[in-house]
Amino acid sequence: MVNETQHSCSASSSSRSDGGSSSGSESSKDNSRCSTPVLDADRHERLREKMRRRQEAGDKWFSLEFFPPRTANAAVNLISRFDRMGAGGPLFIDVTWHPAGDPGSDKETSSMIIANTAVNYCGLETILHMTCCNQSKDEITGHLQKAKRLGLKNIMALRGDPAGEEWEEEVDGFNYAVDLVKHIRNEFDDYFDVCVAGYPKGHPEAESYEADLRHLKEKVIAGADFIITQLFFRPETFLKFMKDCQAIGINCPIIPGIFPIQGYHSLRQLVKLSKLEVPQEIKDVIEPMKDNDAAIRNYGVELAVSMCRELLDSGMVHGLHFYTLNREVATTEVLKRLGIWKEDPRRPLPWAVSAHPKRRVEDVRPIFWASRPKSYIYRTQEWDDFPNGRWGNSSSPAFGELKDYYLFYLKSKSPREELLKMWGEELTGEESVFEVFTCYITGEPNRNGYKVTCMPWNDDPLATETNLLKDQLEKVNRRGILTINSQPNINGKPSTDPIVGWGPSGGYVFQKAYLEFFTSSEIVTALLKVLKKYELRVNYHIVNVKGQNITNAPDLQPNAVTWGIFPGREIIQPTVVDPVSFLSWKDEAFALWIEQWAKLYEEESPSRMIIQYIHDNYYLVNLVDNDFPLENCLWQVVEDTFELLN
Amino acid sequence: MVNETQHSCSASSSSRSDGGSSSGSESSKDNSRCSTPVLDADRHERLREKMRRRQEAGDKWFSLEFFPPRTANAAVNLISRFDRMGAGGPLFIDVTWHPAGDPGSDKETSSMIIANTAVNYCGLETILHMTCCNQSKDEITGHLQKAKRLGLKNIMALRGDPAGEEWEEEVDGFNYAVDLVKHIRNEFDDYFDVCVAGYPKGHPEAESYEADLRHLKEKVIAGADFIITQLFFRPETFLKFMKDCQAIGINCPIIPGIFPIQGYHSLRQLVKLSKLEVPQEIKDVIEPMKDNDAAIRNYGVELAVSMCRELLDSGMVHGLHFYTLNREVATTEVLKRLGIWKEDPRRPLPWAVSAHPKRRVEDVRPIFWASRPKSYIYRTQEWDDFPNGRWGNSSSPAFGELKDYYLFYLKSKSPREELLKMWGEELTGEESVFEVFTCYITGEPNRNGYKVTCMPWNDDPLATETNLLKDQLEKVNRRGILTINSQPNINGKPSTDPIVGWGPSGGYVFQKAYLEFFTSSEIVTALLKVLKKYELRVNYHIVNVKGQNITNAPDLQPNAVTWGIFPGREIIQPTVVDPVSFLSWKDEAFALWIEQWAKLYEEESPSRMIIQYIHDNYYLVNLVDNDFPLENCLWQVVEDTFELLN
Repeated sequence: MVNETQHSCSASSSSRSDGGSSSGSESSKDNSRCSTPVLDADRHERLREKMRRRQEAGDKWFSLEFFPPRTANAAVNLISRFDRMGAGGPLFIDVTWHPAGDPGSDKETSSMIIANTAVNYCGLETILHMTCCNQSKDEITGHLQKAKRLGLKNIMALRGDPAGEEWEEEVDGFNYAVDLVKHIRNEFDDYFDVCVAGYPKGHPEAESYEADLRHLKEKVIAGADFIITQLFFRPETFLKFMKDCQAIGINCPIIPGIFPIQGYHSLRQLVKLSKLEVPQEIKDVIEPMKDNDAAIRNYGVELAVSMCRELLDSGMVHGLHFYTLNREVATTEVLKRLGIWKEDPRRPLPWAVSAHPKRRVEDVRPIFWASRPKSYIYRTQEWDDFPNGRWGNSSSPAFGELKDYYLFYLKSKSPREELLKMWGEELTGEESVFEVFTCYITGEPNRNGYKVTCMPWNDDPLATETNLLKDQLEKVNRRGILTINSQPNINGKPSTDPIVGWGPSGGYVFQKAYLEFFTSSEIVTALLKVLKKYELRVNYHIVNVKGQNITNAPDLQPNAVTWGIFPGREIIQPTVVDPVSFLSWKDEAFALWIEQWAKLYEEESPSRMIIQYIHDNYYLVNLVDNDFPLENCLWQVVEDTFELLN
Repeated sequence: MVNETQHSCSASSSSRSDGGSSSGSESSKDNSRCSTPVLDADRHERLREKMRRRQEAGDKWFSLEFFPPRTANAAVNLISRFDRMGAGGPLFIDVTWHPAGDPGSDKETSSMIIANTAVNYCGLETILHMTCCNQSKDEITGHLQKAKRLGLKNIMALRGDPAGEEWEEEVDGFNYAVDLVKHIRNEFDDYFDVCVAGYPKGHPEAESYEADLRHLKEKVIAGADFIITQLFFRPETFLKFMKDCQAIGINCPIIPGIFPIQGYHSLRQLVKLSKLEVPQEIKDVIEPMKDNDAAIRNYGVELAVSMCRELLDSGMVHGLHFYTLNREVATTEVLKRLGIWKEDPRRPLPWAVSAHPKRRVEDVRPIFWASRPKSYIYRTQEWDDFPNGRWGNSSSPAFGELKDYYLFYLKSKSPREELLKMWGEELTGEESVFEVFTCYITGEPNRNGYKVTCMPWNDDPLATETNLLKDQLEKVNRRGILTINSQPNINGKPSTDPIVGWGPSGGYVFQKAYLEFFTSSEIVTALLKVLKKYELRVNYHIVNVKGQNITNAPDLQPNAVTWGIFPGREIIQPTVVDPVSFLSWKDEAFALWIEQWAKLYEEESPSRMIIQYIHDNYYLVNLVDNDFPLENCLWQVVEDTFELLN
């Protein structure tokens, strides 16, 4: 919105009442008895209801605006930023619409795909901007249908910039944001939550401030659910605007747009685009230090913090919308200083939840994708139903193929050179691979002095929970048990436990110990002999790339390995070891050796042949210790195996 | 079968192969991945598969034959006998078909309804006999459809007695058992398991022993799955018969019919009907003691035991079928002495499972009907789907009304006079009611010297599990907390625990503490104050007969109060406290005061008015302590309540 100018027109009486509507099948479902234990009310509410609930609870919130980047690499970085800034707890993010950048296309950098990624892969409540001028009704309907199909539930309805110098109304076209609001309500009923723009100083093209207020009211009457304002420089500007809105009967939430000044040039650029005037007292401070970016940013943060405080203290403001300019530091600092950046280590479920409405009931997943949740979401995106309550209840639909390892939201954050430094410019044998795994576990630098902060199966450093097993993991990796996933057993820790807890407070969480690794056929042979001793206690699945599969799982039943007991609720069991899904995961896990690691090296090079050898000959093994109240026996199983080999 | 004569005719080649068929939708489902964790393979198999699995496992089994009684009271007693003899672990029971007794009707004493009760209410695998002569095709199809509708899956196909003295074939009619077998296969495909009768000495009306064998083979070729034989007196009779069957290619299971001689007259009666000849060596023993029933029965038991031992030792016999004559003692003694009576205190689930195929996936029920499982089955018999995995997954269909308290399978085993002795010929106030509850809990005689062995809400003495809470229960009942259901909290006991265990071995079971009681509004007022202190820990539902309902349950979500964790399986949670079902249970629980207790007394009598007063003014309360790993706090809640009142 910062990079755009908007217009709206003519106004009249009272605003739509929020939340009371129940025409859509989505919302009528909400009123009936829920089929899944509601662990996380947020997941089941639409944005306007979340806003209302937060306001009623006296809970202050924030939201973040981003624009689509120009290159695929920048998009990968933006998605990491979504993950990091998502951790602070924004109520939503929004993605601007760039008419010039093919915004409705399937390009990695399109507004549509960036918003899609935010919702589906980062689990963020997301508003997609959409402009309407210079577009046909059919084009717009197409964009909206696509947004709906992708699971987007919120639209910011804007006019957009006219194409030519002087703007002229098109007959029968969409000339104002209000036309788009009406169109959305006509064509999609109550499906979308609709947001519109407000101009605290009046839109620069409006006849007058008063006329612009009337235009705003017209947008609300047409069906907008809430308003986000253009940026402003003084708190009183917003507070006056808000009072004026209320005076003419605009009663929906109005969210102030906050722009922390981050540099001299970006401010000038913005002023030019938005036709806003920077107050003299700010110019006076900034001009003298225009070449000192750090000083300007510090000043910008101070200014934003003090303005936000004043807004929040007024009692009229419940949420703050930040124009981030796709940058992290300034906004995060403002939020932290305001005390509304809330890094909540508590998770509604042990895995990252997708925000697609189709997945609202989803509450159980196979453990295999624990470190690759985006891949799991991608491979299950075509499912019509998601398992709920029990994995076995799903008819285990097929997983999508994962052939294109360069799907940008699955791409490694690290470039090739960095990966080579971590995983070895040159491998000398299987042992050099063991070393890489060991360094990843220990966090110690490798022989060339580089820390191994990611692996083909884990794009992030070791999870805190896995740290609980660090010593044992180190020991076994050194000896060729190449672990890629594990969890300790937990016998009823409070759901608020900072490391293993999840779900609402007052509950207890449980886990069966789990260990998943690649290892040689020699070790597998010994392991199988050892496992006979543990037949009743340990379930195992052992498979090679060709699909030779050895298991003692009864039938094809999944084994629940994480579950939680909560006050007044049914049991939740969010992760299972599912024998059927394991075979789909196996393909992905083996392919990652080649796609992410082997291909770093020249074809026919010794390094590449070593990885290829492992890929062709190793087995993927998973082990579950069913006796969760006792001490984890899986280390003993591995120990016994090594003993047998000696 | 003992009371009937049968006939079959003409024979030829090899028998049908068992179990391989998969034409029915029932059996094809079995082959796909199961949607419910298979805790109890028995529940999901058809009878012929159970037989095969037992045989393959070298596991000896028995079955029991009963005939429909003549009076409704005798039917009530027979059902208690089903429950008691069911505890010994019969593979199945069968119910004979009495052409004269309106066997396909809805009368309490009809073969159809007795078999229905055995399957649905006692959870027993059941074979319904059916005869075909003197009946039209349509009548027979009607009977079979009805049997299928009621959940019966096994038919014993018999000819039956001809109506007149001399039997004549009817043109186009069913003249032989083989016609009925063919008809079942034609009309119902593979739905039913079909059993036919074999005659170790040849059918008395057959041309010859050889001809009769050929008739038997014809029945097998027509689609019979196994054979049960007429009774015989010498083991060699059966063993010869079995060899002869095998010699002509009858390969299906052949189960010997065992008749423990129980009395002089019943033996004579039987011999007359079956046209069998009693061997001289037996006559020689029996005649001298024909007036000494006990001696004859002892002899009968000895004889049966030694014959069964010989049969089992032959290695050709895997199961024994007992003609019980609806009596318990002799058969039970034979079975116990053979060591095949297996009272297994371990339960597949904490509640009594129904054997109706529609309910095969059912694995969660509200806790309220814990002591009235037959009532729960009755009130949910119209449901199309049964909750599986989660209670909340069911769309909570309506419970059937329970207006007719005299439905025979729900009728109290005790007559009015006994109930009056237990519950008081005359009540003098609410305190006399407290006393009845207290005596039921303690097992001590009441003031008139009678033990209270049942209550309107519990037709049986206190469950072993409830005994764990006996002292506390006694204390609170004395003071007017009239408990009708409770369970202790359990934090992970082995699933093999003799008192609270259930499900396969190697698992762990858990419970939240539960307490359900009637109490006065005065106590409820104090209780509610106390419960404020326990708000986050204790969930409660408090309701009176008018439906005034006080609860702190979040939304309408059920609370899981029993669950189990098993090796290689998903979590099972077989009992929940469901707020919606509680309101249906409430109607039943309050009505039992009037229907079972108040109505023992004259209208307008003081005793009746006391019960009526309680019914009209008391509340039904349930409490769940969510903190299952801690010491049960519900006793403290009650203690605090009494303290507040003083």
